[in-house]
Amino acid sequence: MTVTPVSSKPAAPPSDSRARISAFMKSLQDSICENLARIDGKGEFKQDMWERPEGGGGRSRVMTGGDVFEQGGVNFSEVQGETLPPSILKQRPEAAGHGFYATGTSMVLHPHNPFIPTVHLNYRYFEAGPVWWFGGGADLTPYYPFHEDAAHFHSTFKQACDRYHGEYYNVFKRWCDEYFYLKHRQETRGVGGLFFDYQDGRGQLYRGPNPDGGAAAYSNELGDVEPRSWDDLFNFVNTCGHSFIPAYEPIVDRRRNTEYTERQRNFQLYRRGRYVEFNLVYDRGTIFGLQTNGRTESILMSLPPLVRWEYGYTPEPGTPEAELYDTFLNPQDWANWSPSESKA
Amino acid sequence: MTVTPVSSKPAAPPSDSRARISAFMKSLQDSICENLARIDGKGEFKQDMWERPEGGGGRSRVMTGGDVFEQGGVNFSEVQGETLPPSILKQRPEAAGHGFYATGTSMVLHPHNPFIPTVHLNYRYFEAGPVWWFGGGADLTPYYPFHEDAAHFHSTFKQACDRYHGEYYNVFKRWCDEYFYLKHRQETRGVGGLFFDYQDGRGQLYRGPNPDGGAAAYSNELGDVEPRSWDDLFNFVNTCGHSFIPAYEPIVDRRRNTEYTERQRNFQLYRRGRYVEFNLVYDRGTIFGLQTNGRTESILMSLPPLVRWEYGYTPEPGTPEAELYDTFLNPQDWANWSPSESKA
Repeated sequence: MTVTPVSSKPAAPPSDSRARISAFMKSLQDSICENLARIDGKGEFKQDMWERPEGGGGRSRVMTGGDVFEQGGVNFSEVQGETLPPSILKQRPEAAGHGFYATGTSMVLHPHNPFIPTVHLNYRYFEAGPVWWFGGGADLTPYYPFHEDAAHFHSTFKQACDRYHGEYYNVFKRWCDEYFYLKHRQETRGVGGLFFDYQDGRGQLYRGPNPDGGAAAYSNELGDVEPRSWDDLFNFVNTCGHSFIPAYEPIVDRRRNTEYTERQRNFQLYRRGRYVEFNLVYDRGTIFGLQTNGRTESILMSLPPLVRWEYGYTPEPGTPEAELYDTFLNPQDWANWSPSESKA
Repeated sequence: MTVTPVSSKPAAPPSDSRARISAFMKSLQDSICENLARIDGKGEFKQDMWERPEGGGGRSRVMTGGDVFEQGGVNFSEVQGETLPPSILKQRPEAAGHGFYATGTSMVLHPHNPFIPTVHLNYRYFEAGPVWWFGGGADLTPYYPFHEDAAHFHSTFKQACDRYHGEYYNVFKRWCDEYFYLKHRQETRGVGGLFFDYQDGRGQLYRGPNPDGGAAAYSNELGDVEPRSWDDLFNFVNTCGHSFIPAYEPIVDRRRNTEYTERQRNFQLYRRGRYVEFNLVYDRGTIFGLQTNGRTESILMSLPPLVRWEYGYTPEPGTPEAELYDTFLNPQDWANWSPSESKA
């Protein structure tokens, strides 16, 4: 595999980059909220506008007690600050000594029904001195093992990626498996999806060991692609953002009317504990928010409304819960799954 | 205030230090478990013995579904390793390049009844090359504001401290308020108690800014005391450890038969979320355990059996919940509280 040299700094962004990305992030929040309210049919989003004393602010939208969604939060934020936190400067030392601009939209949905997966989406954009970058993705966390749901979610995002580059899906899918990994549990958070960070058009997809310390489940020799412009990346993020509803809605439709037992609900509440563990121990967005004096209620909106912990739980062999652990909490080639492979 | 110079390394520990501290930590676990089973009257502890591949092991004991305790965990562990994690080496650079020995007993109790506080205890001991130290403490996390409970807990530990040094209580009480502090919530975890770390007899009680980044609610100019021997510190920790049952049992007795409403139970489940946030984001013991490849189930035994998060909750003014926030989640001089001060 040939590795093309990476230029020393990214090309300058367009002069209206902040206006364009901010308008996009807001419209993505609007579109997702409208669609989720339509899908839910009962719940409505309530909005809080907030300002950050150090500069910037956001709008947080929460739905609770919907027909489908026990809790759903969709945040938009746009903040300025004097210096990025150390965890980011370690990855982008060129940003040291510069003020920063950051904007993003993020979402976490916790459905009532344990057969509907929890899902997360986040897209973000940074500018700091000579550097700028896009990051984000979307990932699915099922409680019960439906192969076709994982395959549909992945295939939808693969199609989005393939419009921009033939390697994007493979690379960003692997990155997602590595990022959303609970080292202390030796489990992925769910079946993954897409994740990417520090995309600044320099042709650098993903290089070097995982900066978050997750398990390197795959080789890191993923190579480079030719340089991309700011507009290329902006369009790519736009397409990914608007692929979320088509990736998730059919799963909700298939599962929302399935009856569930108390045992299944209890398993969902137990597994939600892993979501809490990931977000508070590992998640870059949560840590960035808390480190930059962000709005705590908006940052922790991702935490589930009700959660259980149970000492020493292990699933009984041969059950759907055991299949979740064995297959769905380890990386799989979901985009190429076909119904004939199902053992269910 | 005079500051005596601190010697460059602590005096050597006794030749049988590990045998003595390990026997003490086990007997503390035994004694606490026996007393808690007696207090509960119904629940029993189940024990798991475990070994750590890198060296050492422990015994984890859990009670679930007791009459008083919804979940209670009491851990003993004794581990060896090649190198301490970076977070500890930063505080004790003399330990770099040396193997380490660490032992400790820790406990977290989550009662059913929201009028009985959650409580935590941990005592630990480290040896690494030229350095050794004791650390630990106990702290109380009430859900409803009973001044006499907080005052009793603090007074009991103050009496234990006063047997060893007239400044211990003041210093370790303040350290506890600073350590068990949720910066992102601007709240203490509860009413505190005692906390100390890095006690190696060099006369150093507490110096410099809080290494955990909690709010420095008090001046750090707490001064030094004369050097203490290993035996002095061992006896002090022993006394503190055995003060826990007398500090907590009267509180359980006072509250266990008080009826509670669903609203009060819901508030308890909500406040338990802060316990999760503290332990996963800030707690040194949890981070040490996860960083040193500890036994995850034993480390996370501290997490509550059932927890709620709720976006944007604030207590209604004039309610007991508001009094908790206003008074009990800020540092108070509990040991000197007298019933005449109560507004309840």
